[in-house]
Amino acid sequence: MRAFFQNDYGEGAHPLIMQRLVETNLEHTCGYGLDPYSLRAAELIRQKCGRPEAAVHMLAGGTSANAIAMAAFMRPYEAAVCAASGHINVHETGAIEATGHKVLVAASKDGKALPEGVRAVCREHTDEHMVHPRVLYISQSTEIGTVYNKAELLALREVCDECGLILYIDGARLGSALASSECDVTLRDLADIADCFYIGGTKNGMLFGEAMVIVNPSLQKDFRFMIKNRGGMMAKGRLCGLMFLTAFEHDDYFAWARHANAMADIIRGGMERGGVEFFQRTTSNQVFPVITREQEAALAERFAFEHWADLPDGRVSVRFVTSWATTEADAQLLADALGAL
Amino acid sequence: MRAFFQNDYGEGAHPLIMQRLVETNLEHTCGYGLDPYSLRAAELIRQKCGRPEAAVHMLAGGTSANAIAMAAFMRPYEAAVCAASGHINVHETGAIEATGHKVLVAASKDGKALPEGVRAVCREHTDEHMVHPRVLYISQSTEIGTVYNKAELLALREVCDECGLILYIDGARLGSALASSECDVTLRDLADIADCFYIGGTKNGMLFGEAMVIVNPSLQKDFRFMIKNRGGMMAKGRLCGLMFLTAFEHDDYFAWARHANAMADIIRGGMERGGVEFFQRTTSNQVFPVITREQEAALAERFAFEHWADLPDGRVSVRFVTSWATTEADAQLLADALGAL
Amino acid sequence: MRAFFQNDYGEGAHPLIMQRLVETNLEHTCGYGLDPYSLRAAELIRQKCGRPEAAVHMLAGGTSANAIAMAAFMRPYEAAVCAASGHINVHETGAIEATGHKVLVAASKDGKALPEGVRAVCREHTDEHMVHPRVLYISQSTEIGTVYNKAELLALREVCDECGLILYIDGARLGSALASSECDVTLRDLADIADCFYIGGTKNGMLFGEAMVIVNPSLQKDFRFMIKNRGGMMAKGRLCGLMFLTAFEHDDYFAWARHANAMADIIRGGMERGGVEFFQRTTSNQVFPVITREQEAALAERFAFEHWADLPDGRVSVRFVTSWATTEADAQLLADALGAL
Amino acid sequence: MRAFFQNDYGEGAHPLIMQRLVETNLEHTCGYGLDPYSLRAAELIRQKCGRPEAAVHMLAGGTSANAIAMAAFMRPYEAAVCAASGHINVHETGAIEATGHKVLVAASKDGKALPEGVRAVCREHTDEHMVHPRVLYISQSTEIGTVYNKAELLALREVCDECGLILYIDGARLGSALASSECDVTLRDLADIADCFYIGGTKNGMLFGEAMVIVNPSLQKDFRFMIKNRGGMMAKGRLCGLMFLTAFEHDDYFAWARHANAMADIIRGGMERGGVEFFQRTTSNQVFPVITREQEAALAERFAFEHWADLPDGRVSVRFVTSWATTEADAQLLADALGAL
Repeated sequence: MRAFFQNDYGEGAHPLIMQRLVETNLEHTCGYGLDPYSLRAAELIRQKCGRPEAAVHMLAGGTSANAIAMAAFMRPYEAAVCAASGHINVHETGAIEATGHKVLVAASKDGKALPEGVRAVCREHTDEHMVHPRVLYISQSTEIGTVYNKAELLALREVCDECGLILYIDGARLGSALASSECDVTLRDLADIADCFYIGGTKNGMLFGEAMVIVNPSLQKDFRFMIKNRGGMMAKGRLCGLMFLTAFEHDDYFAWARHANAMADIIRGGMERGGVEFFQRTTSNQVFPVITREQEAALAERFAFEHWADLPDGRVSVRFVTSWATTEADAQLLADALGAL
Repeated sequence: MRAFFQNDYGEGAHPLIMQRLVETNLEHTCGYGLDPYSLRAAELIRQKCGRPEAAVHMLAGGTSANAIAMAAFMRPYEAAVCAASGHINVHETGAIEATGHKVLVAASKDGKALPEGVRAVCREHTDEHMVHPRVLYISQSTEIGTVYNKAELLALREVCDECGLILYIDGARLGSALASSECDVTLRDLADIADCFYIGGTKNGMLFGEAMVIVNPSLQKDFRFMIKNRGGMMAKGRLCGLMFLTAFEHDDYFAWARHANAMADIIRGGMERGGVEFFQRTTSNQVFPVITREQEAALAERFAFEHWADLPDGRVSVRFVTSWATTEADAQLLADALGAL
Repeated sequence: MRAFFQNDYGEGAHPLIMQRLVETNLEHTCGYGLDPYSLRAAELIRQKCGRPEAAVHMLAGGTSANAIAMAAFMRPYEAAVCAASGHINVHETGAIEATGHKVLVAASKDGKALPEGVRAVCREHTDEHMVHPRVLYISQSTEIGTVYNKAELLALREVCDECGLILYIDGARLGSALASSECDVTLRDLADIADCFYIGGTKNGMLFGEAMVIVNPSLQKDFRFMIKNRGGMMAKGRLCGLMFLTAFEHDDYFAWARHANAMADIIRGGMERGGVEFFQRTTSNQVFPVITREQEAALAERFAFEHWADLPDGRVSVRFVTSWATTEADAQLLADALGAL
Repeated sequence: MRAFFQNDYGEGAHPLIMQRLVETNLEHTCGYGLDPYSLRAAELIRQKCGRPEAAVHMLAGGTSANAIAMAAFMRPYEAAVCAASGHINVHETGAIEATGHKVLVAASKDGKALPEGVRAVCREHTDEHMVHPRVLYISQSTEIGTVYNKAELLALREVCDECGLILYIDGARLGSALASSECDVTLRDLADIADCFYIGGTKNGMLFGEAMVIVNPSLQKDFRFMIKNRGGMMAKGRLCGLMFLTAFEHDDYFAWARHANAMADIIRGGMERGGVEFFQRTTSNQVFPVITREQEAALAERFAFEHWADLPDGRVSVRFVTSWATTEADAQLLADALGAL
């Protein structure tokens, strides 16, 4: 059995979540996210965000969450702006375009959209023969494991205010981002800065589930109609409610994310000992070493991970991902292997 | 605590399902429905359907399943045909139209599309100024609890062959339909007659999940692209796989449905003893008595159920729904209350 | 050569229009409807409507105009409401659904939506599992040649105010409607009552062209983006501008429509002399006699017209349409033929 | 009055076209492009292309034509590939995305998609989490006036065959391209190489109109339904038919284009005499000099043209466009002015 670093959605849910699901399994509630668990989870998230006026909706997955938000927030000729590596731009099989909206690419660095890049896109789109940029989409942490700090987020907020953009944050890996040593951003900061963001559950301890936090009241209207219109309303919505309630009532959500990051730190430590180069420096739960093809083949016998990129010099980058479920023993095993390269 | 007859998605999952989820919770698998559980579940369903060439995909919910199928099977100017009470026509917040397709209404009786009604729609839509009917959508059991028998399905199949229609069956409550005393249709029959249908898990013992069975090979191409494009691909696809595997490996799926129907039979028995009129005669897990407003108010103190319709004579119809989770004691309690009206 | 009563778009443009097109043919203007002719035509229409704040956009055709307006005015889960015979419901090949919106059918009489029918649709659509009615679509004159009078329009306006609906009027045959003897509505009335309507040029003297008048300021934003987004922006927008300018600068638009109606009156006179039954009584430019199949065949040798409907008693209804181009001689010929049945 | 070089759609139609429109103005025909003129024009275009099996449809404008074709040819998860400067990518206000499809950008040179760029896009899009490239969109001539020669088109055809792409050519300025001195491609070559292309009328002598030639039979099915579904079917379709018939019956289409190119040659001659640098070398009807801001201001007093780009060195590029309507006197005037810079 190979130690598992392939992704952060390879297991079920954190045992605490499973326990709560089993305990409440035979309770009767109403459906579609209007049950007491969902209502309490939403209220709890509003409190944690310090935003009593926020609307909170729990959804089943990230692509669905992104597509519903984009369709809800934009008129047909409006477009989302993001980094080239943005999940909506590359890895959602055109789900945003399927809602009728173009995705525009802004210049980025380390997977993070640059304020000047966003400004440039807005400057170039000026007349009615072009789409009108309307949403700035960023991911926290990014698709390549980097993290926006507070200054970076505030700089993007400023661009959004200048250009009339909605700031939307894809938080599929928000836990790992906020728990990162490099990140000085809290949930409250996020709620202050963004118009809307979602808190990812699928990749941090839940069976599935993303909590959409719509901070800006002007974006809240009829969002449940949009959820249903796009097939995103779960009959047993209570499942999401209960899972988020469990994750947030004692802040386990962040504890699980800290664990994932700590396991990644162990791996990064091994790399440093072995003098292994980073394809992309990260402080979150994704680690990208540069190794040779032979090393990749050797590691693949003992570890499950993903091939990431072929490099011009013949070497490769691979990706190791940790999660709440990664054991210290496994992380140490990998660190040792990398340290011995 | 009121006895619960409000719907068939008011609890979690059948305890056997929960047990299997807990047992396998820490196993590592790959994501997106390509894991061993999903593959084995798909293979098992193919066997149960007697259709080794069928494509089987597990999806998270009914509206999403319907919208993905319609978007996958039709070109932009093509339309679905269904009964006026069809779920896609009334209760999906325009999810089909959101994929760009019109829903045409055919004449129906007891919630079931009539062959002559479908033919009439096709006859009326003849030129390029009108949409082109392409999919016949029916629900088994229907939205009002009735069930198509084999002869009725074969008659619709004949219309579909005549008119070039795809026969698609929404099986959100397929378990209860096939387990109904009135129904002479097996899963194999369904797979012989329909081009595509889905086996509903959400309303029969699972946390969520619908298994789309695409029998017709010409409709199978790139369906996974469509799932992702519409936000329906779950990262932890193994959950659906495992739930369907559990439900079908010893045919518990049908046992659970038989139980639900038996509980509904107890309720129907009470109605007959009390001389309570049926708004709609059914043999599946939905029961629709006609009662007075006073009786409705009295029952509502002891039972959770839905108000269904206001009748011209001042009376009302209400809906009682049973499931795998309904206890015989609760059903008997309700039967006694109805018997005493 | 058979006398032509098949439709009101069987010729080119009124000779006055052609003359102006030829005279201005070699002038240089900027494109996309920002030329002086388009601006002056828009201003003239605003004046004629008594609505200096209205936005006026000239579009190439009716289906395109309707689809652009519906896409511009509604959010994804919102729906249009119309009579069963509404053009958007039947004869636009799903163009509205292609923009993602459902079309709901309200009860109607003589092709006209009934206030109570519209109210009923709104009463039935109350929760987030159903689409939300947002636009009331009516046609003036209707698809079967009938005309809303002022009281009828005001009654619908009242329903719209009650239910939060936008009142949209498809004026493909607006000229004939307003020129009808039965109609007590002026262009100013229309602009007072409707949120948006279009003035049809294609069926009243122009080569093509419909002038969308958006009276309600809250619906005006970025409409030109919507036009371009849906492929409706013409490079040589000046053509529409010039044609509308020509039609409205001396109110020829209404003179042409009155001529069409007068020709239809001649035909109706013939029917009355011959005791020919009306399938649908009209005062606009469409006439629907009920005749036998033999009479239809005989008339078809001398006149071009459309078969409209097969009646239960074996007879048929046919449709004769007049226009600015119908000659009195032809109308008289047809009247005599009908009078002699 | 400034000499007009702002675009190639600043006038009405070629006088010959206007004459034919006037001559036939009062003829009666049936509508929607099924009239004798449209049928004859389609047949004539098939002959000129040497493709008796081609389907030919006349449409009102380029954006509409592109959007209808993309919507007709692709399934929802499929994408178009084009150069960054591709009209569908930049200047159609998201019309392609509004049909639900992503536009992918391939590496290009001089506005022309490079075979290796297209291959790279296809190589990168391999799994169901990404859109599937399906149509290669190129413009002939390109948006910046360059022209694909036969070898270049054949190389792209080869890529399309390798990668399963449909080759679609936007011929908004096809006349000027085929008439270019640099271009060794005939209409027959184009029909041999492309799966589908359109012959632009709006920018070469007509009031409006683009003739879509669908060479590949597998793409022809129900295209008229698609036209109507997208609001592109004109009631008086005969206008397009007559205009294309007039333009092609004596090959005036190409004569008009040759004239436009000859006028551009005069301008290019002036530039060479004046030693004016080309922003982009072209042989078609668009000319892009590099000048100073002062020169731009001075020229703008005597000539109408477009500002094209701000260059890093403080200079600018401007665009002069010629057409069938450009007079030799005006061209000479501009050439002299440029020659004197």
